[in-house]
Amino acid sequence: MDDQPVSPFPLSRPGETVVALGERETLRRIVRRLPRARAELLGPGDDAAVVSTPDARTVLTTDMMVQGPDFRLAWSTAYELGWKAAVSNLADVAAMGAVPTALLVALAAPLETPVAVLEQFADGMRDACAELAPGCGVVGGDLSTSSALTIAVTAIGDLRGREAVLRSGASAGDDLAVAGSLGLAGAGVWLLYRDGSTDSDAEGRREPDARRARAVRHEHPQLVGEQVAPRSPIGLGVVASDAGATAMLDVSDGLVLDASRIADASDVTIELHGDAIDAEAAALVEIDPVVGRRARDFVLTGGEDHSLLATFPAGRAPEGFRVIGTVRQRGAHAVTIGGAPYERAGGWDPYANWDGAAG
Amino acid sequence: MDDQPVSPFPLSRPGETVVALGERETLRRIVRRLPRARAELLGPGDDAAVVSTPDARTVLTTDMMVQGPDFRLAWSTAYELGWKAAVSNLADVAAMGAVPTALLVALAAPLETPVAVLEQFADGMRDACAELAPGCGVVGGDLSTSSALTIAVTAIGDLRGREAVLRSGASAGDDLAVAGSLGLAGAGVWLLYRDGSTDSDAEGRREPDARRARAVRHEHPQLVGEQVAPRSPIGLGVVASDAGATAMLDVSDGLVLDASRIADASDVTIELHGDAIDAEAAALVEIDPVVGRRARDFVLTGGEDHSLLATFPAGRAPEGFRVIGTVRQRGAHAVTIGGAPYERAGGWDPYANWDGAAG
Repeated sequence: MDDQPVSPFPLSRPGETVVALGERETLRRIVRRLPRARAELLGPGDDAAVVSTPDARTVLTTDMMVQGPDFRLAWSTAYELGWKAAVSNLADVAAMGAVPTALLVALAAPLETPVAVLEQFADGMRDACAELAPGCGVVGGDLSTSSALTIAVTAIGDLRGREAVLRSGASAGDDLAVAGSLGLAGAGVWLLYRDGSTDSDAEGRREPDARRARAVRHEHPQLVGEQVAPRSPIGLGVVASDAGATAMLDVSDGLVLDASRIADASDVTIELHGDAIDAEAAALVEIDPVVGRRARDFVLTGGEDHSLLATFPAGRAPEGFRVIGTVRQRGAHAVTIGGAPYERAGGWDPYANWDGAAG
Repeated sequence: MDDQPVSPFPLSRPGETVVALGERETLRRIVRRLPRARAELLGPGDDAAVVSTPDARTVLTTDMMVQGPDFRLAWSTAYELGWKAAVSNLADVAAMGAVPTALLVALAAPLETPVAVLEQFADGMRDACAELAPGCGVVGGDLSTSSALTIAVTAIGDLRGREAVLRSGASAGDDLAVAGSLGLAGAGVWLLYRDGSTDSDAEGRREPDARRARAVRHEHPQLVGEQVAPRSPIGLGVVASDAGATAMLDVSDGLVLDASRIADASDVTIELHGDAIDAEAAALVEIDPVVGRRARDFVLTGGEDHSLLATFPAGRAPEGFRVIGTVRQRGAHAVTIGGAPYERAGGWDPYANWDGAAG
């Protein structure tokens, strides 16, 4: 993400908006920048795409990102949005133990959106695929108009003969392990809310502020970077499956909440090791001391790192995974930490937690 | 569509909004109403779905509908939106000569949306699948928030050993044929703009009006019905393929524009038969005289019927298709009617034609 994205095609000029160029030309400029899928049999341009699915079972998932609730243009570049839109879907495929093979992208943009914004979005998708899921590409999509930039990505994946790793297979005695970061993305969005917004107005409202956000990014590149363009360990999904993972998901809503999903689906209790969580928090402080005493909460409840959380028969977690807990027979609580329940809110509910007025 | 939708689950109460119930309960109430796919190996509830794709080639397509540009809640019921969101994607799969097997639904709704609205949406999807694509169902999705109701559906389909029917295979001498209606949906939206909106305000703006729209629907059920809940002949996609269709698409942007897409992709000229177009226009007047002298224009440029337009070797169009043209060697024009080019705008470009202020 430190390197400038490279495309053989120059960006369109600022005055070349989607309404100025029209749908056909806008699509032509975007499509040529998109990554080509190795599994593509027929790409964009017909009524539908055709993709090779040799396993005869196809994994598929979709995720929608809306300007406002899900991202702010003052905080994320279009390139980062493309990266994140790809990764959040690739991670869902990886968490099934499958290899992501193809993406579809439906995008609604305001009429006055410069086509260059959509081109940078495409570049971010291309680079995320190239770096995290080589061979995966975009095979089709749809372009519409909306007052808020809205992105819906669909990802499909191939199991290549493996069984899908569900959330429901954990059993007592398994290790719980994680691959990828915990808490960085959550700390990043906390910083953006705290320091990347305007001061409160008379009604106490604050707005995302691009200039302040740039300063925050400069000072805290790793936290903000993980929030706006998470680096999920996509390739470790099949590694986990081959190592015998009994359950897996990607951490999108926070460790405690996502662990409770495995616990509920598997009818077990997940015991997070107190010392392992302390070590994760210490590592987070090491990365950026700004998190301070909040480190442990970010580790436990920060979402959007899109790390892989999996259970394995004891001692079987493969390289790349850190053991942070043990699966127990179901007790009073879905998740405990060092034997005690976690009492704080466990994660993010877009309907219960989102306060439009708060910015 | 005349029958009331039937679900074993009662609708949620008006005060039960998405923000009041939260994501988990909202999802639970919606998911139980959704149609189950015969190809489903793993349905909603995990990171991704798993679907049987026995052909080893999978057809996939996505389409986004945004409140405002793509639909008006004053004109469409939630049930109809669900129906249309399903059909517009099912038709794209059918137009490849494939059998639609599964849908994903990403939906962003305002926080105050009654869950009953989303339930009726689900009922519409279920009934569209049951009637037009039996065996197809919803295997997964995503729920987010937005100020404008936004729906992105992805459909996948199975070729069952057939070759995909592209837009590029038409050749001189082929017949051009259509299955399904032409012009009804276009006339329907014209009526809704004309009679289903408020009078112009001081700035000349008109707004969709639910009460007036109800009167329009009552007087012109077939035209408005096809606009808000099109009845695409999904099952005829594989029939066309088996009959040797050389090219096919679904008519979403108007006959002339969509025919020109086949013509351009196949490097041919498509000659629409003047008498066949006259007959289509006469049939439209027969259905509803309100179209009057505009009938021919609705037939030629009205979109959203999602009929299937295909080319066949001469004399091979199967039952359910009406021959309306002939494929010729490429000439000066992509499409001609009775030998002359069609001079009016050929269809709908969401970026060039959409005027937010106009409605």
